Amino acid sequence: MKISPLVPADFPDMPDVKGLKIKTYEARVVYKNRDDLLLVKFAQGTQVAGVFTKSRTRSASVEWCVKHLASGAQGRLLMVNSGNSNAFTGAAGERSVVGILSHLAEKFSIKSSEIYTSSTGVIGELLSGQDLLDVVDVDKVSAVENAYIAAADAIKTTDTFAKYATRSVKIGGERVTINIIAKGSGMIAPDMATMLSYIFTDANISKNALQKILNVAVGKSFNSITVDSDTSTSDTVLLFATGASDAAHIDDAGDVRLAEFVAATDELCLEMAQQIVKDGEGATKFITVKINGAEDDRAAKVIGLSIANSPLVKTAIAGEDANWGRIIMAIGKSGEMADRDLIEIAIGGVKITQNGQVVDDYDETPVTQHMQGQYVDIDVNLGLGGGEARVYTCDLTHGYIEINADYRS
Amino acid sequence: MKISPLVPADFPDMPDVKGLKIKTYEARVVYKNRDDLLLVKFAQGTQVAGVFTKSRTRSASVEWCVKHLASGAQGRLLMVNSGNSNAFTGAAGERSVVGILSHLAEKFSIKSSEIYTSSTGVIGELLSGQDLLDVVDVDKVSAVENAYIAAADAIKTTDTFAKYATRSVKIGGERVTINIIAKGSGMIAPDMATMLSYIFTDANISKNALQKILNVAVGKSFNSITVDSDTSTSDTVLLFATGASDAAHIDDAGDVRLAEFVAATDELCLEMAQQIVKDGEGATKFITVKINGAEDDRAAKVIGLSIANSPLVKTAIAGEDANWGRIIMAIGKSGEMADRDLIEIAIGGVKITQNGQVVDDYDETPVTQHMQGQYVDIDVNLGLGGGEARVYTCDLTHGYIEINADYRS
Repeated sequence: MKISPLVPADFPDMPDVKGLKIKTYEARVVYKNRDDLLLVKFAQGTQVAGVFTKSRTRSASVEWCVKHLASGAQGRLLMVNSGNSNAFTGAAGERSVVGILSHLAEKFSIKSSEIYTSSTGVIGELLSGQDLLDVVDVDKVSAVENAYIAAADAIKTTDTFAKYATRSVKIGGERVTINIIAKGSGMIAPDMATMLSYIFTDANISKNALQKILNVAVGKSFNSITVDSDTSTSDTVLLFATGASDAAHIDDAGDVRLAEFVAATDELCLEMAQQIVKDGEGATKFITVKINGAEDDRAAKVIGLSIANSPLVKTAIAGEDANWGRIIMAIGKSGEMADRDLIEIAIGGVKITQNGQVVDDYDETPVTQHMQGQYVDIDVNLGLGGGEARVYTCDLTHGYIEINADYRS
Repeated sequence: MKISPLVPADFPDMPDVKGLKIKTYEARVVYKNRDDLLLVKFAQGTQVAGVFTKSRTRSASVEWCVKHLASGAQGRLLMVNSGNSNAFTGAAGERSVVGILSHLAEKFSIKSSEIYTSSTGVIGELLSGQDLLDVVDVDKVSAVENAYIAAADAIKTTDTFAKYATRSVKIGGERVTINIIAKGSGMIAPDMATMLSYIFTDANISKNALQKILNVAVGKSFNSITVDSDTSTSDTVLLFATGASDAAHIDDAGDVRLAEFVAATDELCLEMAQQIVKDGEGATKFITVKINGAEDDRAAKVIGLSIANSPLVKTAIAGEDANWGRIIMAIGKSGEMADRDLIEIAIGGVKITQNGQVVDDYDETPVTQHMQGQYVDIDVNLGLGGGEARVYTCDLTHGYIEINADYRS
């Protein structure tokens, strides 16, 4: 496995979040000599919000979470294992989820409906759960210095680095902490590289407000990244609020006291989403596609994703080729409203087209220079309306083919 | 440029179609030492049908054809040039099309609205037309043995072989000929690899009937292939019927006398579409995705294209890896109705999954053997309804990255 040249240089220290306890274990489901099981125990009354893959073939764990989240269940435990996704294992897979969670519920004296769970790893192989339960039963917890870094490590599959971030913000004068961990190696491969992210806070916020805040944050971050347009059967983002800080209870997502919290949650999700793209196997460049002037925000995002998903655009960027014709093509094929003669395209801040043709004195030199860097910025103004969006992706390289052409062996 | 290992071994002899005359010229617009301009003159009363790219940024030539086709104009001339697509050249590009066609109209004593035209090649550079008109004016036609093969050669850009086919069928006892030529190197690259196809017949069929026949044929062929999900700004299929054979005039597409003609047109379009996939740069395997049991035919096609466009599915096939989990993933992300526990997947005729899990005695050996061949068959039965579709694509290889990462240089 290649280490992406885009790995961040600095990682933060991770403070505690009140009202939860993290343990990681070496359950040896598939991986050896590393932790592969994460348990997080939450205080009574912890509120949960979640966003899940829209796949029509999603895994038993995702179905479980969706069902209990909808019923309004509080979160008392989060269990995540890596190595085996238990996806596409039919009725037997569903029974195994029920079996594992019933056992954990009994052990921790909670209801199984209060347990949220994800599994990530090879698909099509039944997760028996015995290994998991054995290590939990003897409480064979790993010795770790920082629980959040251990947690981020335990949920990795093909990731080349652990992904985590933190913010400290005030709600009505009281300080709360928000920690996030994530995994996903950008390829969004269904077997192993599922995108998972968990957000932990000691803020005291209602379930409905949390869900609204999470929906907006995910739309601008995890749902605005693409590596190869493929979607996992297990993608999950969960937000847990223990309420254990001194901050007052807040019921409404629009409450002005939540301004800092909302902004910090947006930032954390975006940071994790960008790290997932940067960890894309084969990725050598991080690409930001900004769309302005679209019919509306929805259209802007569809156009942005059409550019970011185009193999022709992504291979051109890998080759540091300022091939703006492929951007025009990708706008055209998106199916969204576009007027050829109004489209303005800039790369690296240098305007290339206007009035439906190349600018008069177009000099490709500064554009090519920009494309030789690790960060490539594409700006498109459709000149139609106020719709805007930002989408993030990476280039399509030989490394991607190498890794994915024979991944399982 | 690599020659695809999938190039057909045999090419047909091409008979004449009554009521038209083909000429090719060396206009040297971009290419040297090869013909790059095709003119086809049609008899009075030639009926035309057409299908065009759905891109929102389509070229001036496409806009011209769409407009005149809608007005019911007969076809007296077809002009196609390769090397410069004249796409995204703004108002100047539109004026150049009008200028070139006005000149040709005068020369041939026809109306410019009766001329159909396509341009394929580099985008963003204005096609002045002077080179084209010069060779036409002096009638500097190339000496060619077979006009159809010369025509198929003249419209090539990145194609590694000329694409053409023929059928002879009876309409009400009288024999008619249908010839087809096409270009497109599978990558469907916007700069050069536009998909173009022209069908010529001496049958005597109404414009409306031709359009219906063409729509169905294109839906099952050119619109059922994908190489990288990218769509050109210039894709065009035109069907010209001169009526110069002895066959009776037929007004209605449903007329039983057209049965052979309809079947032959379907076959010809499918043959050209498959040749375009086989000519994909980097392609080493031809993939047929058959979907059955979908909610309806539309859903089946969306699911088939989701599988055929998935970079993860295509890289797995390049690696001869029977990674059926990626097929499940692609079904799931299509957004169409699917029940995880009803999906049956077979590769090379070997059933892999049923009842939402791997079959009990699954042996991967014969599947891997099948995938080592040049033709890979994927069958999916969704078990929901009667919807079905077939979709064709090729694998995603290092060759694709090599060719597209720095195409223009």
